[in-house]
Amino acid sequence: MSLAFCEHGLNRDDHARANPERLADLRASPLARLLAMEGLSPVLGADNGLTWGELGEVAEVVFLGLDGDAPLFAAVPEAGDTRPAYQQRPAWDALSLLPARDLAIYGGARSLVDWHARHRFCANCGAPTQIAKGGWQRNCTSCSAQHFPRTDPVAIMLVEHDGDLLLGRGLNFPERRYSALAGFVEPGEGVEQAVAREVLEEVGVSVTQVSYVASQPWPFPSQLMLGCHGMARGRELTIDETEIAEARWFTRAEVATAMDRGVPDEDRPFLPPPPTAIARHLLNWWLERG
Amino acid sequence: MSLAFCEHGLNRDDHARANPERLADLRASPLARLLAMEGLSPVLGADNGLTWGELGEVAEVVFLGLDGDAPLFAAVPEAGDTRPAYQQRPAWDALSLLPARDLAIYGGARSLVDWHARHRFCANCGAPTQIAKGGWQRNCTSCSAQHFPRTDPVAIMLVEHDGDLLLGRGLNFPERRYSALAGFVEPGEGVEQAVAREVLEEVGVSVTQVSYVASQPWPFPSQLMLGCHGMARGRELTIDETEIAEARWFTRAEVATAMDRGVPDEDRPFLPPPPTAIARHLLNWWLERG
Ligand SMILES: [Zn+2]
Ligand SMILES: [Zn+2]
Repeated sequence: MSLAFCEHGLNRDDHARANPERLADLRASPLARLLAMEGLSPVLGADNGLTWGELGEVAEVVFLGLDGDAPLFAAVPEAGDTRPAYQQRPAWDALSLLPARDLAIYGGARSLVDWHARHRFCANCGAPTQIAKGGWQRNCTSCSAQHFPRTDPVAIMLVEHDGDLLLGRGLNFPERRYSALAGFVEPGEGVEQAVAREVLEEVGVSVTQVSYVASQPWPFPSQLMLGCHGMARGRELTIDETEIAEARWFTRAEVATAMDRGVPDEDRPFLPPPPTAIARHLLNWWLERG
Repeated sequence: MSLAFCEHGLNRDDHARANPERLADLRASPLARLLAMEGLSPVLGADNGLTWGELGEVAEVVFLGLDGDAPLFAAVPEAGDTRPAYQQRPAWDALSLLPARDLAIYGGARSLVDWHARHRFCANCGAPTQIAKGGWQRNCTSCSAQHFPRTDPVAIMLVEHDGDLLLGRGLNFPERRYSALAGFVEPGEGVEQAVAREVLEEVGVSVTQVSYVASQPWPFPSQLMLGCHGMARGRELTIDETEIAEARWFTRAEVATAMDRGVPDEDRPFLPPPPTAIARHLLNWWLERG
């Protein structure tokens, strides 16, 4: 059971980032390739894989890593995009088409170049920033501030009670699409506290015995999804309608039917999250652990 | 065995953040209190606890949450500070003095107000930003960008081989101080991949069977420490001296002696990390699991 976006298999060669000569050599390599994108969406080939072009004279490029001996780069686009993934077509459609390794390469590249496009100025003083360290940093041209690509930890959790599972429908989800509850980990709390706080805030349920299950990145714009499991102390729900549209308890049999590929959509108790979402992985994990 | 910085026990009352009337009421409450700080350091009382003052007319305040009925706030200082904790006196000294709950309140507050002090301008367009949502957001005064307090996930790991443990001495650590290896989780990887990559980069060791142990925040400036354990495939070390000063394998007996409070410093095989560091918790966890 694999997690999406995790295994791009590139050598990040982090030493090259701090070595301008080595970076110049990588850019000048005849093997260097630039990820083909339109805005923040990948340009897919005939086989639905990523496509690559000549590096050329692009001003701002990020060094993604080495694919064997080939240095891979991505260009910073005109503008970033912080909308949810499903609002970002055709990128959203590409997620279900790309082979696993290409999906991971695209995800990492998308997070990085989107961050650059939205960080051309220094948050500390307002002056322009310049790309540095092969695209893994931006430096202020006025004060001494250094800025680093952002990764936002998100707690996402399966909440269980008496063998049933609590799932929610997000505010903008299609009808019948349910997934795990989730929320950003805030300053001043660990993952386990974030799980308990989010569940209490969103559905009014007190959670205990929180355990970690798995993690994966989610590149819209740059989340680190921290998948957890917890036990509810009760099953009465008080939904916060500013945060989610609906939440309810599903039996194990309902979850199994919803996740069964052989069942037509209209016969599923709910429509599960897509395979690229860690929530799908968590549901599989929960069913398999019995 | 407790983790530092996690359990402040405040009600974050996140609904108040989006409700200007409620926020105004909280600020006007006779119970409202402002955390006493000098710059980013806490002002300690006679009992080495935090001290609190009148809210008054401070321009930029962050709503920390409710302590019972008392709304707690912290003020945004003139300047932020991104240096390592041990370079930030007297805040560093306060960490070992504050009671656990006060330490957690201070840690969360420090991360938030430091972030505000370093984000007075919009990274997207360079215009000034304004504090919003009770200090849990800043809005650009020119473009539509919203900015949120940052939390940077860091993977920190105990690496084991044949019953021994791999620990490193950071570039600026005192002599004989060893701790767990650590590094930021980058865009395009999960926690487990970050563990394997960091260990390979820092000491040239290949790691497998990575598992999660525990998490806690580290408020200098705002890390989320994700504590893990992994098994090394070999024990030959190739130290990256740009990342760490030294690394070596310690036997279980050596780790136990180093962690034994009854042993004088000069007889310890190494000086362990302080109790506020998750690395200390990980070492205790490892010793107790036997
Ligand atoms: Zn600046
Ligand atoms: Zn702006």
